[in-house]
Amino acid sequence: MSRFIKKHSQKVGLTPGSLVHIGKKRSEKIKVSLIDYNEKEITEKKLKSIKESFPFKDKPTVTWINIDGVHDTDVIADIGKHFAIHPLVLEDILNTDQRPKIEDFDKYIFIVLKMLSYNENKKEIESEQISLILGSNFVISFQEREGDVFEYIRERLRKSKGRIRKMGSDYLAYSLIDAIIDHYFIILEKMGERIEIMEDEVLSNPNTQTTEVLHDMKKEMLFLRKSVWPLRELLSSLQRNESALISESTSIYLRDVYDHTIQIIDTIESYRDMTSGLVDLYLSSISNRMNEVMKVLTIIATIFIPMTFIAGIYGMNFEYMPELGLWWGYFAVWTVMLILGISMLFYFRKKKWL
Amino acid sequence: MSRFIKKHSQKVGLTPGSLVHIGKKRSEKIKVSLIDYNEKEITEKKLKSIKESFPFKDKPTVTWINIDGVHDTDVIADIGKHFAIHPLVLEDILNTDQRPKIEDFDKYIFIVLKMLSYNENKKEIESEQISLILGSNFVISFQEREGDVFEYIRERLRKSKGRIRKMGSDYLAYSLIDAIIDHYFIILEKMGERIEIMEDEVLSNPNTQTTEVLHDMKKEMLFLRKSVWPLRELLSSLQRNESALISESTSIYLRDVYDHTIQIIDTIESYRDMTSGLVDLYLSSISNRMNEVMKVLTIIATIFIPMTFIAGIYGMNFEYMPELGLWWGYFAVWTVMLILGISMLFYFRKKKWL
Amino acid sequence: MSRFIKKHSQKVGLTPGSLVHIGKKRSEKIKVSLIDYNEKEITEKKLKSIKESFPFKDKPTVTWINIDGVHDTDVIADIGKHFAIHPLVLEDILNTDQRPKIEDFDKYIFIVLKMLSYNENKKEIESEQISLILGSNFVISFQEREGDVFEYIRERLRKSKGRIRKMGSDYLAYSLIDAIIDHYFIILEKMGERIEIMEDEVLSNPNTQTTEVLHDMKKEMLFLRKSVWPLRELLSSLQRNESALISESTSIYLRDVYDHTIQIIDTIESYRDMTSGLVDLYLSSISNRMNEVMKVLTIIATIFIPMTFIAGIYGMNFEYMPELGLWWGYFAVWTVMLILGISMLFYFRKKKWL
Amino acid sequence: MSRFIKKHSQKVGLTPGSLVHIGKKRSEKIKVSLIDYNEKEITEKKLKSIKESFPFKDKPTVTWINIDGVHDTDVIADIGKHFAIHPLVLEDILNTDQRPKIEDFDKYIFIVLKMLSYNENKKEIESEQISLILGSNFVISFQEREGDVFEYIRERLRKSKGRIRKMGSDYLAYSLIDAIIDHYFIILEKMGERIEIMEDEVLSNPNTQTTEVLHDMKKEMLFLRKSVWPLRELLSSLQRNESALISESTSIYLRDVYDHTIQIIDTIESYRDMTSGLVDLYLSSISNRMNEVMKVLTIIATIFIPMTFIAGIYGMNFEYMPELGLWWGYFAVWTVMLILGISMLFYFRKKKWL
Amino acid sequence: MSRFIKKHSQKVGLTPGSLVHIGKKRSEKIKVSLIDYNEKEITEKKLKSIKESFPFKDKPTVTWINIDGVHDTDVIADIGKHFAIHPLVLEDILNTDQRPKIEDFDKYIFIVLKMLSYNENKKEIESEQISLILGSNFVISFQEREGDVFEYIRERLRKSKGRIRKMGSDYLAYSLIDAIIDHYFIILEKMGERIEIMEDEVLSNPNTQTTEVLHDMKKEMLFLRKSVWPLRELLSSLQRNESALISESTSIYLRDVYDHTIQIIDTIESYRDMTSGLVDLYLSSISNRMNEVMKVLTIIATIFIPMTFIAGIYGMNFEYMPELGLWWGYFAVWTVMLILGISMLFYFRKKKWL
Repeated sequence: MSRFIKKHSQKVGLTPGSLVHIGKKRSEKIKVSLIDYNEKEITEKKLKSIKESFPFKDKPTVTWINIDGVHDTDVIADIGKHFAIHPLVLEDILNTDQRPKIEDFDKYIFIVLKMLSYNENKKEIESEQISLILGSNFVISFQEREGDVFEYIRERLRKSKGRIRKMGSDYLAYSLIDAIIDHYFIILEKMGERIEIMEDEVLSNPNTQTTEVLHDMKKEMLFLRKSVWPLRELLSSLQRNESALISESTSIYLRDVYDHTIQIIDTIESYRDMTSGLVDLYLSSISNRMNEVMKVLTIIATIFIPMTFIAGIYGMNFEYMPELGLWWGYFAVWTVMLILGISMLFYFRKKKWL
Repeated sequence: MSRFIKKHSQKVGLTPGSLVHIGKKRSEKIKVSLIDYNEKEITEKKLKSIKESFPFKDKPTVTWINIDGVHDTDVIADIGKHFAIHPLVLEDILNTDQRPKIEDFDKYIFIVLKMLSYNENKKEIESEQISLILGSNFVISFQEREGDVFEYIRERLRKSKGRIRKMGSDYLAYSLIDAIIDHYFIILEKMGERIEIMEDEVLSNPNTQTTEVLHDMKKEMLFLRKSVWPLRELLSSLQRNESALISESTSIYLRDVYDHTIQIIDTIESYRDMTSGLVDLYLSSISNRMNEVMKVLTIIATIFIPMTFIAGIYGMNFEYMPELGLWWGYFAVWTVMLILGISMLFYFRKKKWL
Repeated sequence: MSRFIKKHSQKVGLTPGSLVHIGKKRSEKIKVSLIDYNEKEITEKKLKSIKESFPFKDKPTVTWINIDGVHDTDVIADIGKHFAIHPLVLEDILNTDQRPKIEDFDKYIFIVLKMLSYNENKKEIESEQISLILGSNFVISFQEREGDVFEYIRERLRKSKGRIRKMGSDYLAYSLIDAIIDHYFIILEKMGERIEIMEDEVLSNPNTQTTEVLHDMKKEMLFLRKSVWPLRELLSSLQRNESALISESTSIYLRDVYDHTIQIIDTIESYRDMTSGLVDLYLSSISNRMNEVMKVLTIIATIFIPMTFIAGIYGMNFEYMPELGLWWGYFAVWTVMLILGISMLFYFRKKKWL
Repeated sequence: MSRFIKKHSQKVGLTPGSLVHIGKKRSEKIKVSLIDYNEKEITEKKLKSIKESFPFKDKPTVTWINIDGVHDTDVIADIGKHFAIHPLVLEDILNTDQRPKIEDFDKYIFIVLKMLSYNENKKEIESEQISLILGSNFVISFQEREGDVFEYIRERLRKSKGRIRKMGSDYLAYSLIDAIIDHYFIILEKMGERIEIMEDEVLSNPNTQTTEVLHDMKKEMLFLRKSVWPLRELLSSLQRNESALISESTSIYLRDVYDHTIQIIDTIESYRDMTSGLVDLYLSSISNRMNEVMKVLTIIATIFIPMTFIAGIYGMNFEYMPELGLWWGYFAVWTVMLILGISMLFYFRKKKWL
Repeated sequence: MSRFIKKHSQKVGLTPGSLVHIGKKRSEKIKVSLIDYNEKEITEKKLKSIKESFPFKDKPTVTWINIDGVHDTDVIADIGKHFAIHPLVLEDILNTDQRPKIEDFDKYIFIVLKMLSYNENKKEIESEQISLILGSNFVISFQEREGDVFEYIRERLRKSKGRIRKMGSDYLAYSLIDAIIDHYFIILEKMGERIEIMEDEVLSNPNTQTTEVLHDMKKEMLFLRKSVWPLRELLSSLQRNESALISESTSIYLRDVYDHTIQIIDTIESYRDMTSGLVDLYLSSISNRMNEVMKVLTIIATIFIPMTFIAGIYGMNFEYMPELGLWWGYFAVWTVMLILGISMLFYFRKKKWL
């Protein structure tokens, strides 16, 4: 459940804009890296202190500051002060239980996104919050922990591949968003495979665990949906944005990401429908099995109960039971019972129970 | 049910704007407290009579009048007269069965909210109505009873912590709303925990009470939803408000509360989906157990009924039954029965019933 | 079903605007009463003929003509002619199967509403159509039969209580609408009580009738919803109305009624969800009972069938059955059977079937 | 299924605007009738050839050409040429699988509607497509076959009843639409009756056929909905139409038809909900019956199986069974068995199984 | 599942606009054909290299370049360069997992559609992506493989049938879209037939496979819906398009295609409802069968168990059992048992179990 809502209790009663980290506790040191580039040059640095990045703010080059870890409130406060970021934005960066959203503060645009990854062991989707601050000549990205999907972008920057070195900070922000959303397709493929596997299981070997797994998958889908659904609005408003920070040529690229988002949402909805269909299939599969069990019971009981009754009759100890004395009595009873049994079988076959 | 709709009957037929208290009957005296502040000074008072607050109305300082208890219509009427509040607003304050709403009357804005708390004993969410009147230099807050989530705000005011003493009555109103809505997260955490507990129970030990609890949780969710849903519209219209009463800098904070509301609504919807999923899981869990019971019955019956039949056969009293005289007859019958029984067991194992 | 759609067949093929009464046939004489008032004076009359009301039309005082019974088409036609009402409006007044609606014809506003009452005997909501024509200085109200919820308003007019005598015909119309909608809360309380009673019944003593009652309640809810849902649009358009007929001060009161309507709709939707929840609860309750029955059967059968088999074995008449001769054989068999039975009981207890 | 989608295959690959008749094949001759009127005069004619109608086009009188049968493409092509109708409109007239729609081509408005009738034998709603072309002084109506709901309108025209002779072609078109939609109420009454009958059947005598009938009713409702739903938009856009072809006075009448449509849609949705409710009721009714059957089985088995076991015990042939020799043994066993049986019955009565 | 989402993994991390083919791997050579026409002349060519088409770009005639196969990225890149197509468009053409969409780039309009065909063997709908680029005097169409629904259009061009040779590239694009969407009706007919077949099967012979087939049909419907739903928006925006590329006369034709799309969506939704209805029908059909099986079991058990008990009684070996000595005892027992059995049968008949 903790994935659906994180501990807010600790924050209740604090001044709005108070800098409190909400999310998994971490103790490792925050890592800060910086890439500064224009079409001709590129500088890449691991920073010891966030202060080393401040001089880059006033250079005309594009500066990308990436921060791994948001549990050190001091670092975030320093950035806030130097880059003149609104306290509520800083609060949102620290609260890793944000809904994806976009906020336009004239001088910069603040974007919150979820980076998803599939944990094969727990069979669970894991989520990490990425916050982006897009200024006129800088992008600051905040991640919860090390490890991301941006390596390809760094590579492209270093090798000056594609458009990226020629364009501004808005294109860099777009690239980061695109990398995150592209990664959702991997999750969807995973989910698709799981649905296919469950489909086979439900049809060939439905067991008690099947419902549990289907229930988990439904929850997984709910979680995915909760992370992706707000992106529709986010990207739609980003693309239509009239902010001077986003150039028209980047806008076309954002439309492309928007289309991807719609496709992802469509697929999630289809998957949700399919999982629901699987639950129905499972239930009717159980019903069918119950039916089968009932039939076996009924056939056995129906055939043997009357026969046992006949045997019971001739097990009675009455002194005067004429049939008992007949030499063919025993065989006659066998014959009657066999005919009874066989006609029952025929009856059931006619009723298609066999 | 009384939580969903309160007794309106007593009001039927009265003039609109009549001051009648709708809600739980109370007899304790209404408590009125007042905090008056500007950046430099702060006065805090417990008032004996509401009249003591009237002089503060014309002072330029921000005045916060908090009233605990709305069952004394005279007090409300007095406030109405002095602060020139529309009779319908007074009526709404007294009627504690209001839907959360906002109404803009040029000179003041009237806001109705629900403060929720989770009663651990009854396992029920309890709701208290909070009405706010936001004027240019005052905020009047009405609560149903003592005890609230505003203590932190008073503390901040006294200690002059954060922005609050520097800003106007609109920021105070925002702070109150924010405190109420922040508290919803606590309720959500509670609900999330309950869902998790029920999930375990449904999977490990579903019993007759489980459905009752799930049904109660569904109702709880409906109640929560009914209180939260209207907030979306309320806060959206508050934030976009063009009233002179709300400054632009406060507006940014209201957008933040709005985001929280959306997140709360999202989470409630996810929880509703999960609870529905739990009901499905419970039903398929029952079906599975029934199936298991059926199988045991069928296996026992199927194995022993034919064997009992054979025993019955040789219990018959026919004079001429050749098998009875054979010295190995008895053992042969045992052998046949054992083979029958064991092959049945194999058959069931093959069918995966065992 | 006749509550959901009334006999229209008789009207098929008639000219639009033909005056035909659709609804329950009635034969009693139509009753017409008139109240004419301004701030200072009030005249109240029972009219013998509708014509007596015509002189009041041109007086500046507010005139309220109330007509009990719409089955006499001549009376309606007379009113239509004198007050210059569009033939389609007259047709709608006579057709008591109208959907609640509002139509603005410059010179007057036409409003159709449903007055609901709960028939304790039939356990059914009954509906009566109320049509209002609001002119600049008159209100004409049409009811299907005598008996209404307006008595309080008459009283207020007579005693000059509240605002009503000081304000115009629009406020009178508002008062009538408010009285009708306030009455819906009574119905909702009734429904709420029924849901609570059914909740207890489903949990403690679900029986075959329970489903029937739940089904009836669902239908009742559908009926309620059909009557209330259109009010949202109706009142919203009435409140935003730019017609000169509605003053701004009345508009504030209409917003209040609008809020009530939203609250009623919310509650109906919650009730619908709860009733659906009850059906689910009932079904799982039946499943649980079936399960219990199955378990008893299975336990009895599982314990006694093997024991009966053993008894059957020693009831066989084989000449050579060594056990039969042992003096302790009989007691051994009893012992075996008891051990078998008791171990079964333990097994079932372990499986939590007992 | 053919009611839901007709054979389009034959048209695939043809030029858009190709005149191909889609629908039930017919061979009878197309019948054309004409009514030409103004306030003073009326001419009525059965035409041998469509060409006879052309001279009326330029007369200022209102001309109504009604065509029974759209399977003769030549006739439609002739009309198209003479009245300057867009080829796509002609194509739509011939394709009887159109969705109800309205298209405004300045010089004329094209409307497609479905005329429904209830076939008592097949217990099915049948649909016929009606296309209307409304020009400034003419209306052309196309029907699939003879027999319609317009007879009343012809009568009114002949007898100069009501407004119809005084008004233009737009009022004639309105009258035709109104006649078609009024007829829907008849269908709804029919459906309402069927629901009521099924309600009784489900409660008193649910049988295997009940589900089939409920399934058919659901399909019928889907079909009805498919025909009626688009009317909402159609009539709404017709009423708001700014075309010079529709006068303001007719517009008020169209609003009336629009209201009817909303009411019809509301009722269909209520009926759909009720039918779904009936399916639930049926399922819980079956569950209840199954439960009852189970109880009888369990009671019988639970009472007799232990008793049979006791009888089995004393049927054993052990040489040393002390009870057998007691003179009161037999009666003691009977007593024990009776006590056992009776106490079981009491137990079941306490459990409310009896 | 691969139909719902294709392998995107290979693209993750590439520069946006990178040309990578996503979809089924193919190795055959890409085929390019060209048709160039105006009202008077027509040229048709199979091209060896895409370069042969470039000279046609600047001719005033309409040029239709059709490319079968998008797995050769070089060809696509060449076209992109020569016709000045945005890299994102080229990327979208190569990615055959696009959602249907339209994008307007002033100089050209880019449209993605799905061409569907029903694979009778797999009982599956297959989908092929068609991309169209509509320029002022050219249309470029991209298909995944050979074989299409455009043959009729080529025929019409060659024979100069209908409007097509007289109109511009916009009309050609419309014709292609129309051909694709017309083909959807064939799929719908197929689905309709399958629903009808399943309906019969569910009612007459429901078996374990039925659920599987219904589940497959639901998935098929989901897939269809995913391909068709976006068309509504696509065609609506194409029709309202204010681009200079689309003439007003073509716009009317696009409205026609739009209407078809709405009808297709309506039908899919009806089919979805019907398939859901079938699942319900199947479940209640299984319940009914189970009920029937239960009844047979109960009847047999209820009749024979008491009778077997009586037989058991007289099988006991008590020395003193007075009935055993009576000469009519045996016959009396038979009589009692027959009366018991017959009265049971009557009882069950009265309960309508027989």
